[in-house]
Amino acid sequence: MDFAAYDRVRAVRFNESTLTLLDQRALPLQTRFVECQSVADVVESIFNLTVRGAPAIGIAAAYGVVLSALNARGDDAQRRLQIEQDCATLNAARPTAVNLAWALARMRDGVQLYGPDPVQLLMLARQIEADDLAANHRMGKIGADLIAPGSGVLTHCNTGSLATAGFGTALGVIRAGVAMQKIERVYASETRPWLQGARLTAWELLQDGIPAKLIADGAGAYLMATGAVQWLIVGADRICANGDTANKIGTLSHAVAAKYFGVKVMVVAPSSTFDMQTASGAGVHIEERNAAELLEYSGTRVAAPGVDAWNPVFDITPAALIDVIVSELGAFAPGAIFC
Amino acid sequence: MDFAAYDRVRAVRFNESTLTLLDQRALPLQTRFVECQSVADVVESIFNLTVRGAPAIGIAAAYGVVLSALNARGDDAQRRLQIEQDCATLNAARPTAVNLAWALARMRDGVQLYGPDPVQLLMLARQIEADDLAANHRMGKIGADLIAPGSGVLTHCNTGSLATAGFGTALGVIRAGVAMQKIERVYASETRPWLQGARLTAWELLQDGIPAKLIADGAGAYLMATGAVQWLIVGADRICANGDTANKIGTLSHAVAAKYFGVKVMVVAPSSTFDMQTASGAGVHIEERNAAELLEYSGTRVAAPGVDAWNPVFDITPAALIDVIVSELGAFAPGAIFC
Repeated sequence: MDFAAYDRVRAVRFNESTLTLLDQRALPLQTRFVECQSVADVVESIFNLTVRGAPAIGIAAAYGVVLSALNARGDDAQRRLQIEQDCATLNAARPTAVNLAWALARMRDGVQLYGPDPVQLLMLARQIEADDLAANHRMGKIGADLIAPGSGVLTHCNTGSLATAGFGTALGVIRAGVAMQKIERVYASETRPWLQGARLTAWELLQDGIPAKLIADGAGAYLMATGAVQWLIVGADRICANGDTANKIGTLSHAVAAKYFGVKVMVVAPSSTFDMQTASGAGVHIEERNAAELLEYSGTRVAAPGVDAWNPVFDITPAALIDVIVSELGAFAPGAIFC
Repeated sequence: MDFAAYDRVRAVRFNESTLTLLDQRALPLQTRFVECQSVADVVESIFNLTVRGAPAIGIAAAYGVVLSALNARGDDAQRRLQIEQDCATLNAARPTAVNLAWALARMRDGVQLYGPDPVQLLMLARQIEADDLAANHRMGKIGADLIAPGSGVLTHCNTGSLATAGFGTALGVIRAGVAMQKIERVYASETRPWLQGARLTAWELLQDGIPAKLIADGAGAYLMATGAVQWLIVGADRICANGDTANKIGTLSHAVAAKYFGVKVMVVAPSSTFDMQTASGAGVHIEERNAAELLEYSGTRVAAPGVDAWNPVFDITPAALIDVIVSELGAFAPGAIFC
């Protein structure tokens, strides 16, 4: 199956000595780029959401290590130490997605193997990126094979080309499912507070000519009650050893509704998202971001001055609510592979 | 119990020959008023959400009938006909909340009893308003009595003074629960697309000095998973004969999550919200509004041009998910009073 027609967007590019990121804060109304030439630039871009999406964060961080090696000075030991410190800084940029730590661990392994050589480390970072794209294409096919013709699907947040090396995880399955004529109806929830669904997913689907409808996050359960969707298909930021899955806030609400209304739940994530060191969701650090993300929109105040907010940006969906986890290694029931 | 300290806001006022509405489109950043001197003004204000909230819509429509009687010309029969036509126009302004039809039925009864006399009809409209306020105070006490000390609550949309004659339905219970030292933690979901929670509920609670935290709609399930709330307390736009409840989109998502996480669900609505003519939720007309409400925010485009949306603004929570319905007549399990 050739999915090239559904794979037009790239969020992360590395050329010469510059990491160029498609600025996801500005999409879809503006297409602009942020250039990173230092680890500090990359850390800032991860923290401020210029680049987001668990696999894309990992890839950006891998190129950040290349920038670290390019900028490191001194003898071999001094440069190794600088890279090690930069890895720790990159790792702290966002806490919930495990792909960041995973990519940095691979890059650290590279330093062990090859020394602080920017050329070797660049080859490794490019391999991480290529592996992610290949995994996404493979997961697209595996996931779409599970979907019956004539189905409708709901997805949440953005898990497409913008969130990965390309094609996407959950959105890759949706692209493949449309290409394979399995999926007839696509719904995307807008994903407050950062509106990844409204701004990014809807835009990506438009680029590829895939008809889709945006819904309010709160409309997920009612959509399922109408019978319009047969699958909830989402990505993951961290899949624990027992199958509990950390993903964008709102995933849990959708998953509970899916269970209630008999809609199946598919989690799509490359093996780099699996964290066998964390036994269950109870061990995952859920990032809380600034209340302003809820109180404002694009700098315009929404709530009255003085209003307070609670803004966790991920939640934990227990394994019991997940029907199938799709990785590039295959499709598994959560209970079948873990524990 | 004196709740006066928690009852400072009024959305609907009638003086002389003018219905003055606090413009809920502009809150909380601007306090401005819209003056209605004709039925057309009232219809427009109901449709464009200058006034919203099921009981407040009913009260505004009742005063609309007074304006109709003031403006009607001709002999008694001609004026009765004009009022009858105006009632039909008012009734069509929004389809889901039954309080609108209920208030108009009472005003039509008034025309039957008293003739097209504006003075008599004004007394009746004022009685509808006063009854609503009294019902809210009574429901506040009844609902708060059900809540254990030290509880946390989540509410959705706006069901406060802005949505009623004053004090509120679900928000009235929360006000009473705080006054009675039952409730320690209040969370309000922002309620996309129109952000009644962020703009109106958070503002009302701030006016009354009740500490509260705003959350994204999608964070409801995760909030419940943390154990921070013991009750989901919501209003209703229409309660069917079997207890199925139409309310703001997102209520169903919260109610399903509440059932899953053992959080109790309280629906608070005056008896004017009960529709014994409609057997179940399947018979309720769910209003769908313009997609632009999801695609834009305050006139600023959010989604890319060309993106489509599905924007139902209510959903149906089945009676099986509701633990208790509080009306001014008492607190009932849905199964206990209906069928």
